[in-house]
Amino acid sequence: MTVRVGVVGTGMIGRDHVLRLSNVLAGAEVVAVTDVDPVNAAAAVADLPRAVVHPDGQALVEAPDVDAVIVASWGPTHEEYVLACLAAGKPVFCEKPLATSQEACRRILDAEVAVGHRLVQVGFMRRYDPAYRAMKDVVTSGAIGAPLLVHSRHRNPSVPSHYVREMAITDSAVHDFDIVRWLLDEDFVSASVLAPRRSRHGTDLQDPLLIILRTDSGVLVDVETSANSRYGYDVGGEVVGEDGTVALADTNPVVVRREGGFAGAVPAGWRERFVRAYDVELQAWVDALAAGLGATGPSSWDGYAAAVASDAAVQALRTGETVEFRLGPAPALYTDESGR
Amino acid sequence: MTVRVGVVGTGMIGRDHVLRLSNVLAGAEVVAVTDVDPVNAAAAVADLPRAVVHPDGQALVEAPDVDAVIVASWGPTHEEYVLACLAAGKPVFCEKPLATSQEACRRILDAEVAVGHRLVQVGFMRRYDPAYRAMKDVVTSGAIGAPLLVHSRHRNPSVPSHYVREMAITDSAVHDFDIVRWLLDEDFVSASVLAPRRSRHGTDLQDPLLIILRTDSGVLVDVETSANSRYGYDVGGEVVGEDGTVALADTNPVVVRREGGFAGAVPAGWRERFVRAYDVELQAWVDALAAGLGATGPSSWDGYAAAVASDAAVQALRTGETVEFRLGPAPALYTDESGR
Amino acid sequence: MTVRVGVVGTGMIGRDHVLRLSNVLAGAEVVAVTDVDPVNAAAAVADLPRAVVHPDGQALVEAPDVDAVIVASWGPTHEEYVLACLAAGKPVFCEKPLATSQEACRRILDAEVAVGHRLVQVGFMRRYDPAYRAMKDVVTSGAIGAPLLVHSRHRNPSVPSHYVREMAITDSAVHDFDIVRWLLDEDFVSASVLAPRRSRHGTDLQDPLLIILRTDSGVLVDVETSANSRYGYDVGGEVVGEDGTVALADTNPVVVRREGGFAGAVPAGWRERFVRAYDVELQAWVDALAAGLGATGPSSWDGYAAAVASDAAVQALRTGETVEFRLGPAPALYTDESGR
Amino acid sequence: MTVRVGVVGTGMIGRDHVLRLSNVLAGAEVVAVTDVDPVNAAAAVADLPRAVVHPDGQALVEAPDVDAVIVASWGPTHEEYVLACLAAGKPVFCEKPLATSQEACRRILDAEVAVGHRLVQVGFMRRYDPAYRAMKDVVTSGAIGAPLLVHSRHRNPSVPSHYVREMAITDSAVHDFDIVRWLLDEDFVSASVLAPRRSRHGTDLQDPLLIILRTDSGVLVDVETSANSRYGYDVGGEVVGEDGTVALADTNPVVVRREGGFAGAVPAGWRERFVRAYDVELQAWVDALAAGLGATGPSSWDGYAAAVASDAAVQALRTGETVEFRLGPAPALYTDESGR
Repeated sequence: MTVRVGVVGTGMIGRDHVLRLSNVLAGAEVVAVTDVDPVNAAAAVADLPRAVVHPDGQALVEAPDVDAVIVASWGPTHEEYVLACLAAGKPVFCEKPLATSQEACRRILDAEVAVGHRLVQVGFMRRYDPAYRAMKDVVTSGAIGAPLLVHSRHRNPSVPSHYVREMAITDSAVHDFDIVRWLLDEDFVSASVLAPRRSRHGTDLQDPLLIILRTDSGVLVDVETSANSRYGYDVGGEVVGEDGTVALADTNPVVVRREGGFAGAVPAGWRERFVRAYDVELQAWVDALAAGLGATGPSSWDGYAAAVASDAAVQALRTGETVEFRLGPAPALYTDESGR
Repeated sequence: MTVRVGVVGTGMIGRDHVLRLSNVLAGAEVVAVTDVDPVNAAAAVADLPRAVVHPDGQALVEAPDVDAVIVASWGPTHEEYVLACLAAGKPVFCEKPLATSQEACRRILDAEVAVGHRLVQVGFMRRYDPAYRAMKDVVTSGAIGAPLLVHSRHRNPSVPSHYVREMAITDSAVHDFDIVRWLLDEDFVSASVLAPRRSRHGTDLQDPLLIILRTDSGVLVDVETSANSRYGYDVGGEVVGEDGTVALADTNPVVVRREGGFAGAVPAGWRERFVRAYDVELQAWVDALAAGLGATGPSSWDGYAAAVASDAAVQALRTGETVEFRLGPAPALYTDESGR
Repeated sequence: MTVRVGVVGTGMIGRDHVLRLSNVLAGAEVVAVTDVDPVNAAAAVADLPRAVVHPDGQALVEAPDVDAVIVASWGPTHEEYVLACLAAGKPVFCEKPLATSQEACRRILDAEVAVGHRLVQVGFMRRYDPAYRAMKDVVTSGAIGAPLLVHSRHRNPSVPSHYVREMAITDSAVHDFDIVRWLLDEDFVSASVLAPRRSRHGTDLQDPLLIILRTDSGVLVDVETSANSRYGYDVGGEVVGEDGTVALADTNPVVVRREGGFAGAVPAGWRERFVRAYDVELQAWVDALAAGLGATGPSSWDGYAAAVASDAAVQALRTGETVEFRLGPAPALYTDESGR
Repeated sequence: MTVRVGVVGTGMIGRDHVLRLSNVLAGAEVVAVTDVDPVNAAAAVADLPRAVVHPDGQALVEAPDVDAVIVASWGPTHEEYVLACLAAGKPVFCEKPLATSQEACRRILDAEVAVGHRLVQVGFMRRYDPAYRAMKDVVTSGAIGAPLLVHSRHRNPSVPSHYVREMAITDSAVHDFDIVRWLLDEDFVSASVLAPRRSRHGTDLQDPLLIILRTDSGVLVDVETSANSRYGYDVGGEVVGEDGTVALADTNPVVVRREGGFAGAVPAGWRERFVRAYDVELQAWVDALAAGLGATGPSSWDGYAAAVASDAAVQALRTGETVEFRLGPAPALYTDESGR
């Protein structure tokens, strides 16, 4: 059975998903797209003669031949389209953030709970990265004992001009928040933000940052974000346990020896680093739909949890204070899930 | 356009390809299978209700709804099925070896030349591995200067009971022969085989081996094969040039620190190590067919070249002598190709 | 010219230094020892028939044939012996801490300033470690741009029974404080301490810790200390600059591949990890004395700076507050020094 | 007790040893030197007012205040000076080669056997390198099973103008011959040499080479030598056993991330790479002398064994043939030794 997918938003990541579903993955067909810029939407499906360009997201969601929807539009529009999908009873894959405030995420949660079964998957692709999966396997195996500390680094070589300082949290560190929460299978309870002096690259930002989180059981998590590492897209992490540690390894394919040294490459950007994770993530989504399982990956609850942590960290950044928070218990709809 | 594929041979690799085309890759559908064991063939398509089980390869090749064929049967049958595809004018992806003798490969070559355009792709998947591709990029960039030496290691943790000593060459080292020829863009002119004392694991074999090849320009290539490394499937290589070297890096995703040391994993087998290469290889084949390009990857000529080198190495193993050989010029059909 | 050295304190590190001067390094002879336990002192020089066992440190310092003194006794006694050396005008190598309070360090400083030239070297051996030196070379070369962040980890496999929670700072992190100050050539201005939940190994401690320091120019430094890593003595660090980073590499000599993976060793303890640094440090001290240069390495001022940072961090640990402090300007005696 | 050492030959390595004994190691004093160029000899001890410059090696060996001798002169003179030391009953440390022909080595052997106890240590410093020692520990532990293959690489960045093609064997690979023989605790029985096309750097040489040796038990050893790696001094090796492998790790102290990649340094030359091995080697020699043990490290027999293997490899290089040889049994004087 081929899953017929509509894509809302044909910016960079939306187009990537159109190409991925059409040319890389099995079992899906892009039958509909829409974008705030209809020319852009049409261009995204120029090679897909059967795909329809809809005037807006609402029309796309309601189109009878659309089995499932990918929301890859501008963050502030996510809530509207995800709620439309829930109203239509259609599975939806929503790029992060699920919504731009925890209140909006909460409305989505409530709507999904009212539906009574999961329809929403949030695009935390790191959970599908082979290295993070291997890391989780080690943590859950008990080989390093109970986790005590997590170090995470998230360095972008540069950022676009519309990037503002809070985006170090809402756009970048939110991935670290989700992956650490998933690795530890625990929620956060506090956040604070430490800022060193600013890099001369991007002085209009507060860059880099060291974000400190604490989990319910007391695990201490530090997340270094850099918007201007210059040298590459460098994601790293280490979980320190009572009996040992596990760290992400380097990802370079070859080592070159010349001119006095050896050298390897750091990924140039997130698309290069996580291309496989995106493939696996979306294939898993398609497979689950084809099997009639509904959404199985990162849930609305995970999106909400990330939003709550992000909001706290943004507040901590702005006030310089440690912000404490409690996620509260998850609705039963989400506690039955494996979290994978 | 969906490419309708028939698969001849539903052993381990044939089944992998059925699953890959059905569940992992885009643009193809398995519509037909056949196997020497019809029950096995039927089991391979149990989840594909539209797929037909044919009584034999000839019938499958001739089936009107089969656009293209994958030959994954026992090596000695390859020649017959590939020739049948050529006779039917259908594209064929043939697992290595193309055929079990250089004479049989030559017959395939002649038949394809008579057709007048490429229809055959040979399953040298390493050419699609990201690490080998990065290695080739370095070599062709000139960064390490002209190649002088190549070291290659090809270690299997263990081998099945039907594995005989010549298979260290015809089954294992043949991959190294092809990838080195591709990396250097050169043909071999001699082969010799050196054997250390035998491993106590598998004493009925001559294991391990050190195979020495020389290319037309004088590059010296050593290939270590082990059928019983015990510790894992370990493929490595280094090209030594006049100004530097390039080597494959380790592939482990995480590093664990515990009990006095750090550690990472070695792949357990070739499927784990090269799963992505197989995916990329077959997707490229499907894409080329969908684009009407015919075969674009490793050609019959590459399969023939590997067979000639293998035959020479087997002769060297049996006689203890250095065996010299010349491939001769490639038919024009193959020299127009990029060879990827 | 052979430098005649007296050693005060023949515990583990004192004995190491006796052996090092006698059997490993050039240009020195141990002519005198003393210890709170005279039997222990005598045992330390059992192989050195010419060495005299003095009844106490004062007698050793005043002995006419003692050219220079090593203070390796219990920390609380350091001040007395270093002051005695200054009074006697004799060069003294004092193991860290220089003294157990910043006030005591200040008294030593004042005494040395009154002497008018440097006589004191403090045992911050990391400054002589080849890896830290290579790191400093990279930082000062400008290759990574201006430093913004420093991550440091200092993990002990286990600690002796007398180890109390403040020693994570005064005994362990003090090395990180000094090396980071040396790497950055900057002083600290604040300290805070974050504690995750405790490891089950050593629950009477607050272990591990994450200590956060800030330098005068705003570089943010995090130091992870673990008293119970279990797996080994693991010291690591990374300086993050505006244009790149530099990190300590692993130190393992060989990689073993067996049983499904590859593995290397982590040093078992600080003596194994820093044996060369101790050798180089003490040889440099002896060489400087032989050349009539007086003390050249880490100075009383460095010892004072470390004490001030340690005191602040201990206060931060006890109060949970961020503690701000200012070192003030160094006496001229120390600003002429390169600080190595 | 200070060992009074005379040094014959004050070229680069001779001067290094003078400095090492005077400034780095414990327990020795350089009291005499000689060189074919007396000005050079005098310069080597300019900072050692008590050292005497002798007119020739014979005079130095016979000087009553010379307890032991280091022979670091031009290879063809080694035999004469070592025999002189044996005649004088004085311990001698001889840089490799022990002598420039196996016949000359044999004469030294015979003379030492006539003396009745070991007096000669040969300068195979790799045996004192911590990485090779760790490698030997792994091999002898049985962790990788019985050795089957050894891969060794020995790359020099460049060579001096007097370097001729045989020196790839007699000057470079001879170190690999000795270290492999020591690692395996076995003798070689055959040698052959394979030459790829020549590097454009140094076309008057046959460079690089792949030297193939076989041991008595059938272990196959390949040694790659390069006189013009250009990129650095790169020594590597792997022992492949029945159950696993052990390889030398990289030696770089720090990893730098910038400009799209990560990088580390390769040693610039053999002095940088093996400086510690030289220190440990010579300290061990001095310690053994001080303890009255005579020579304990690599023996005349080891020097002879290396010469026999070198001679065979040179013959193989010149003739293109595989050269077989037998070392024969060692005199009892050498079989009592540990080989260290």
